[in-house]
Amino acid sequence: MTVTRQPTRQARGDATRRQILDAAERIFADIGYAAARLDHVAEMVGIRRPSILYYFPGKQPLYDEVEADIFSSMHSFVLAQTEGVADPMARLLALLDAWLDFLVGRPTAARIIQRLIADSAAYGDNPVRFSETALQDIEDVVAAGVASGQFQPVSAMVLLNTVAGGALHYVCNAHQLGPARSYDPAAPEQLAAFRAMIHRLAKAAVSFEA
Amino acid sequence: MTVTRQPTRQARGDATRRQILDAAERIFADIGYAAARLDHVAEMVGIRRPSILYYFPGKQPLYDEVEADIFSSMHSFVLAQTEGVADPMARLLALLDAWLDFLVGRPTAARIIQRLIADSAAYGDNPVRFSETALQDIEDVVAAGVASGQFQPVSAMVLLNTVAGGALHYVCNAHQLGPARSYDPAAPEQLAAFRAMIHRLAKAAVSFEA
Repeated sequence: MTVTRQPTRQARGDATRRQILDAAERIFADIGYAAARLDHVAEMVGIRRPSILYYFPGKQPLYDEVEADIFSSMHSFVLAQTEGVADPMARLLALLDAWLDFLVGRPTAARIIQRLIADSAAYGDNPVRFSETALQDIEDVVAAGVASGQFQPVSAMVLLNTVAGGALHYVCNAHQLGPARSYDPAAPEQLAAFRAMIHRLAKAAVSFEA
Repeated sequence: MTVTRQPTRQARGDATRRQILDAAERIFADIGYAAARLDHVAEMVGIRRPSILYYFPGKQPLYDEVEADIFSSMHSFVLAQTEGVADPMARLLALLDAWLDFLVGRPTAARIIQRLIADSAAYGDNPVRFSETALQDIEDVVAAGVASGQFQPVSAMVLLNTVAGGALHYVCNAHQLGPARSYDPAAPEQLAAFRAMIHRLAKAAVSFEA
């Protein structure tokens, strides 16, 4: 007797839901929230628009789930990469590496975060609804380094806007600087050179010597 | 005999054109190209939509003129601030200062550039149509520093995405990190601290000591 393993109805529903989220992330990243339409998402998945509404009641809830998933995945990745790293400097570099690797591996996330920073009006009264964990992650690492006396009293905001934010520009700018300056942010040599610069800048930022 | 100085018809037309460009820059910065409508611009200026079409034949030409004006103003400002500065390091810092001051003074420009980096599809086959001068400015300064032997052989792209790009995040993030982390990017003490960090990072980036 052969046992055929048919995907259950629940599993098929979960897979469709995941496909919708992936397509939506790609579209929100490429053209932004305002220009994105549920029809685009449906077309990319190969289903009809009403099928999307079965899983998500509208564009805003769909977007919210995409953004929430980006930041919760990023936070989980940071937790995994920094686990057991006690030294503040090593911890800061592990956090910056985690962000860089996460964004290089998921460039749609980089574009969505880049848009989130630009959109001054679109996110209502709490622009950090989903990104709070990321801000907390860097604030904790910087605070621990300063408290230990290893870091100069630098602000997390300054690190965020320069050294940490660099990963966003590195990923998003790869094909935005014109054909002559295009690069592949995931190419090992390119990525290693950028990572080395991020480490160098992070050390300079927190060092006591000016 | 009294000579009344009435604005000429030409001068009134120029003033209206300028008002339309200013309003458009504000709206494109706040909500992005896709969401912006000529009706919003008309309402902000206090004129009717057809009056905009008298000056600009549509949304795209209006946007193009806004972006062109941002980059040509930024380039002129850089030229003025770096004129006569021969030493490569001093020239790099003068360029970074010029960008920072320009963007702090014109935060709408920072948001529009931030969006330009995120929008992977919106700018056709030449995303650097207007920003080419800015890229050339930093490439020239970096190339001169490397050629003189004062800078390590660093790539302009790496500097652009970290130290230089930091000014964009500094301006755009001011009210995007939640009420508890809001800051005024133009406040003298805040700006001085950020500028000092940019200088420190720029020196670290081009220095031969790792």
